[in-house]
Amino acid sequence: MPDEPETHVDVAALSTLLDGRYKTVRDQVRANLVERKDVLGDAESMTSSEFRERVKDVVVELAGTGQTGYGFPQEYGGGGDIGASVAAFETSAFGDLSVLVKLGVQFGLFGGAILQLGTERHHKEYLERLVSADLLGAFAMTETGHGSNVQALGTRAVYDPENEEFVIDTPDAASRKDYIGNAAVHARAAVVFAQLEVAGVEQGVHAFVVPLRDEKGRTLSGIDISDCGPKIGLNGVDNGRISFHGVRVPRTALLNKYADVTESGEYVSAIDNADRRFFTMLGTLVQGRVCVGGAGINASKVALVIAIKYALRRRQFGPPGTDKETLLLDYGQHQRRLLPLLARTYALHFAQERVSADLHRVFTDPDSASERLRRALESRAAATKALGTWHASRTIQECREACGGAGYLSVNRFDALRADTDVFTTFEGDNTVLMQLVAKGRLTDLRDSFGSLDQIGMVRYVAGIAVETVVEKTAMRQFIERLQDAVPGGGQSDDPDAGLLDPAYHLSMLRWREDHLTSSVARRIKTGVDRGGDPAEVFSVAQDHVIKAAWAHGERLVLEAFHTKIENTPTGSNRDVLNMLSDLYALSVIEADRAWFMEHGRLSAGRSKAVVSMVNELCRKLRPHAADLVDAFGVPRELLRTELI
Amino acid sequence: MPDEPETHVDVAALSTLLDGRYKTVRDQVRANLVERKDVLGDAESMTSSEFRERVKDVVVELAGTGQTGYGFPQEYGGGGDIGASVAAFETSAFGDLSVLVKLGVQFGLFGGAILQLGTERHHKEYLERLVSADLLGAFAMTETGHGSNVQALGTRAVYDPENEEFVIDTPDAASRKDYIGNAAVHARAAVVFAQLEVAGVEQGVHAFVVPLRDEKGRTLSGIDISDCGPKIGLNGVDNGRISFHGVRVPRTALLNKYADVTESGEYVSAIDNADRRFFTMLGTLVQGRVCVGGAGINASKVALVIAIKYALRRRQFGPPGTDKETLLLDYGQHQRRLLPLLARTYALHFAQERVSADLHRVFTDPDSASERLRRALESRAAATKALGTWHASRTIQECREACGGAGYLSVNRFDALRADTDVFTTFEGDNTVLMQLVAKGRLTDLRDSFGSLDQIGMVRYVAGIAVETVVEKTAMRQFIERLQDAVPGGGQSDDPDAGLLDPAYHLSMLRWREDHLTSSVARRIKTGVDRGGDPAEVFSVAQDHVIKAAWAHGERLVLEAFHTKIENTPTGSNRDVLNMLSDLYALSVIEADRAWFMEHGRLSAGRSKAVVSMVNELCRKLRPHAADLVDAFGVPRELLRTELI
Repeated sequence: MPDEPETHVDVAALSTLLDGRYKTVRDQVRANLVERKDVLGDAESMTSSEFRERVKDVVVELAGTGQTGYGFPQEYGGGGDIGASVAAFETSAFGDLSVLVKLGVQFGLFGGAILQLGTERHHKEYLERLVSADLLGAFAMTETGHGSNVQALGTRAVYDPENEEFVIDTPDAASRKDYIGNAAVHARAAVVFAQLEVAGVEQGVHAFVVPLRDEKGRTLSGIDISDCGPKIGLNGVDNGRISFHGVRVPRTALLNKYADVTESGEYVSAIDNADRRFFTMLGTLVQGRVCVGGAGINASKVALVIAIKYALRRRQFGPPGTDKETLLLDYGQHQRRLLPLLARTYALHFAQERVSADLHRVFTDPDSASERLRRALESRAAATKALGTWHASRTIQECREACGGAGYLSVNRFDALRADTDVFTTFEGDNTVLMQLVAKGRLTDLRDSFGSLDQIGMVRYVAGIAVETVVEKTAMRQFIERLQDAVPGGGQSDDPDAGLLDPAYHLSMLRWREDHLTSSVARRIKTGVDRGGDPAEVFSVAQDHVIKAAWAHGERLVLEAFHTKIENTPTGSNRDVLNMLSDLYALSVIEADRAWFMEHGRLSAGRSKAVVSMVNELCRKLRPHAADLVDAFGVPRELLRTELI
Repeated sequence: MPDEPETHVDVAALSTLLDGRYKTVRDQVRANLVERKDVLGDAESMTSSEFRERVKDVVVELAGTGQTGYGFPQEYGGGGDIGASVAAFETSAFGDLSVLVKLGVQFGLFGGAILQLGTERHHKEYLERLVSADLLGAFAMTETGHGSNVQALGTRAVYDPENEEFVIDTPDAASRKDYIGNAAVHARAAVVFAQLEVAGVEQGVHAFVVPLRDEKGRTLSGIDISDCGPKIGLNGVDNGRISFHGVRVPRTALLNKYADVTESGEYVSAIDNADRRFFTMLGTLVQGRVCVGGAGINASKVALVIAIKYALRRRQFGPPGTDKETLLLDYGQHQRRLLPLLARTYALHFAQERVSADLHRVFTDPDSASERLRRALESRAAATKALGTWHASRTIQECREACGGAGYLSVNRFDALRADTDVFTTFEGDNTVLMQLVAKGRLTDLRDSFGSLDQIGMVRYVAGIAVETVVEKTAMRQFIERLQDAVPGGGQSDDPDAGLLDPAYHLSMLRWREDHLTSSVARRIKTGVDRGGDPAEVFSVAQDHVIKAAWAHGERLVLEAFHTKIENTPTGSNRDVLNMLSDLYALSVIEADRAWFMEHGRLSAGRSKAVVSMVNELCRKLRPHAADLVDAFGVPRELLRTELI
């Protein structure tokens, strides 16, 4: 049995802290979901097409409550508050995830593209109808043979100046639009991404609004739509495949915020560089990534509530000679499985709050946002999305296994949770590809700071790297490390535990890892290019190194967001417990990568063992607070559906 | 593009090597599965109850082909060949896994319990009917509140001497039989595990044959059966819950091989010790574990065939200035994801072949098998089952992610593969619990060897541990390690790559880890007990350490099995490629645990980095053979079902 804790969590206060600025919005969504909780079981009793209709109906109903329109201008029936729209979407992840994803397709992708890439004429024509869910739409970007590499899409849009129309075509099987949500049954229109050709000149990928079906749902001429069929999860969403055969749309169908074709048939854009234009267009879609990351983090909370509450009820084996078996959560191994994931969920929650606030700032006043701020937002969104969705896959699976055979029954929610979230790591940017974008951003920053360093600064920088490299290669590194650790905040000295719970030590470790990985990737790429290699190829060969650097960057951002939050929390029990969670998050990160830290002379063997022991110790200390910590997530009991707790 | 390989795999020969002694049996099963390949899609088009009927029909048909009866005596319509029965079951994992699990319930669990725990009277009454699938049955062990801790089951069987009957009862909700395969619809009888009470004395858990339904499928009086409902996967299997209320069965319903109640109402057993009796009974059920481990390994093969073939077809991004995008499998990161899993699948395949051969030996002539041999089999079976099924979960998930959005569609098989195999880590012994059994076995061995050491040997042994401990704690360990590595086969010296591909080095590393973990657990437990701790509690506190020791033991057994297989393979290209796979398996294992090796002074930082680089290098070298290596698994094309390749 655990000792009685000295500190007591104030669950209501912690819940309010987690809900943050948009508590009212989140509570509205909770109530809306509870009212429609039956949808959580419908996938099991309905046929696939009945379930798709049911999910569509829920989406339309939710549109009626206003919870889905926060991101759109008030003049078109929206709420005019981007932060609120992210909060509403994230919170929807407590409910059925087919509903969530269909909301995302309709309001985030389809609606978001028209809002961000279109101009007033498109807003007037479509926004009000799509905000009310009167017009359902799709986002037709991905193709069978072209996923992450959007610039290589095959669908074509050739401008016909005679008729002032674009002619849209699918040239080959690989260019068929694929996995498109809402396409198989419900969408009446789609935003279609295609290679634009004007007067024989290729202008790259652009987006067009293309009608797919008439009012009665009949597919329009020139368009073939087939059904993707059953999927691992999200079977309430009707994914489909679309081919176009000489489909004509008017000149005004081009979403023309960043480029246009004039009445006289001329291609014009305020952004000269084609690459820059393309990435500016894509950049406006960042909200989708922020939303999916948040949804992954909130789905993890649902799994943790069930698994931790179950572990506080279910007993198994126990000390001989006693009648009572031991609670699962009193096993060290079981704490190890669940509590570091709980700590990481808290950490990611606050990181998500940060990226969502950044998004709100940039998009609420887009003209005043600097290029640098936009780039930082895109990078942070990509990192948080990747870490948040990988975390969801891992956490939900671990929680299901921690509930044994009971976790295998659909009624206990893990079935849909894990099947539905599984593709989160793939859509809205494949995580592996996103991590490479993050790393590229970091390398660009590095180049920028190179640029601004004076001659002497540059020499110092390079010399710094060289010293570090030599140090690694000699037995001296052990001594150097001790010297480094001897400075305040990182103290090693005689006591291997000294400073282990110092937040400054955690941050310094995560920063050091990030800087080392980024500068060594930079060096590796520079050397490769200096030797005559093609930059893209050199980058590709260093792929694992690149991704690791991005991962390190992301985990450091998460820790900083957690620290900032704690600094702004009043002292008291809740702050004490948040500190423990932050310690557990940071030390779990270091523990998971301790081989790397040792390889690079930043952790001695003894210190590394101390980290492992401290993770165990922190799990033990957090054990008495586990129930309060999951209660604070505020997942309504009705949505847990489970028989287990 | 990869270089043309110098060696070429002889796929047919490698396939024959993999199929081994039971190639004919495996080919028979392949043909049977191909003939019924439609069942792979039926879960998507049928209702749950239609699918259950379909799966039942397939099971009955397969019984007609003889493939399911190999494990039973020929006089009852079986094949009398235990090894063949494991081969047939394993190979069935290439097909639908609901069929596989229903086969396992009927012939492995229900049939196996009657065969192994019953005597001639039970064999005569049941075997022929169950081998022909005329009598379908269930294996009612697990209860809602009692899973892995079988000794704590709550179901009761009280002997009534008056009527020479047992009265079977479910005393409370926690003692309801739960998750029982075949129970919800099809089983007409069950082997029920219950606490036996004879003349007021508790005799522990025993097994009884209890009729559940009449010929028309109506549940018998005193028995309540409910349906577990939809599950994450395996929805072709009708899992149910059973409660008993004063159900009477005759005295002869007790499966009485190890204990009986005589006509005069006396409890008798040849095994005096109750614990030993219980574990002897459970020990006879080891075949189920061997089968599930093999099924997990074979399911992994299916996933790898699809993901690797897809990665040899799908292109994405590529060098600028060229038209052609790059094949997925030419990305280092993609090789990293898939090829170490391929190597581990080969390694586990041969480990499985070994445990299956051991099982065949012990059970073909049970009377001549020593206690030691049995114990070794149980330990090996537990370790292989846990490693094989964890491997399946990880591999199938990684393969699905490696196929991106396409992997998410049910038609590409990952859906059912991963949902169905997910519970393999839980049933037939929860992996975490099994690993503790493995560790306990190792500790017992250690105690035995303590016992047989003379005084001086003991002193040396203990002193050895002490020196090692001191060495870890001083900076000297770096130098010691270099000395150790300087011996032939482990050479470090100036070249950090020296000896990295020496099988003897791999084995010495895995042995060292295992010995160190086992002896340190022993020491920890001994210290804990010496200080007055309860042995079971001390064991429980050291749980993560215990499980790690078992893991290390299992991975060493797997490597040895691989080495033995290679030694018996004729020299040539196939052997060369197997050597590469063995190297990759071993170095991946070391790489995954390199933090531990560094912490314990067995790997220097430089050497550790060299291991990581060598894993990359081996992936690159195996890349040209990847297609051949998955083809050799002999998964029929018809069973892949996928559109991807």
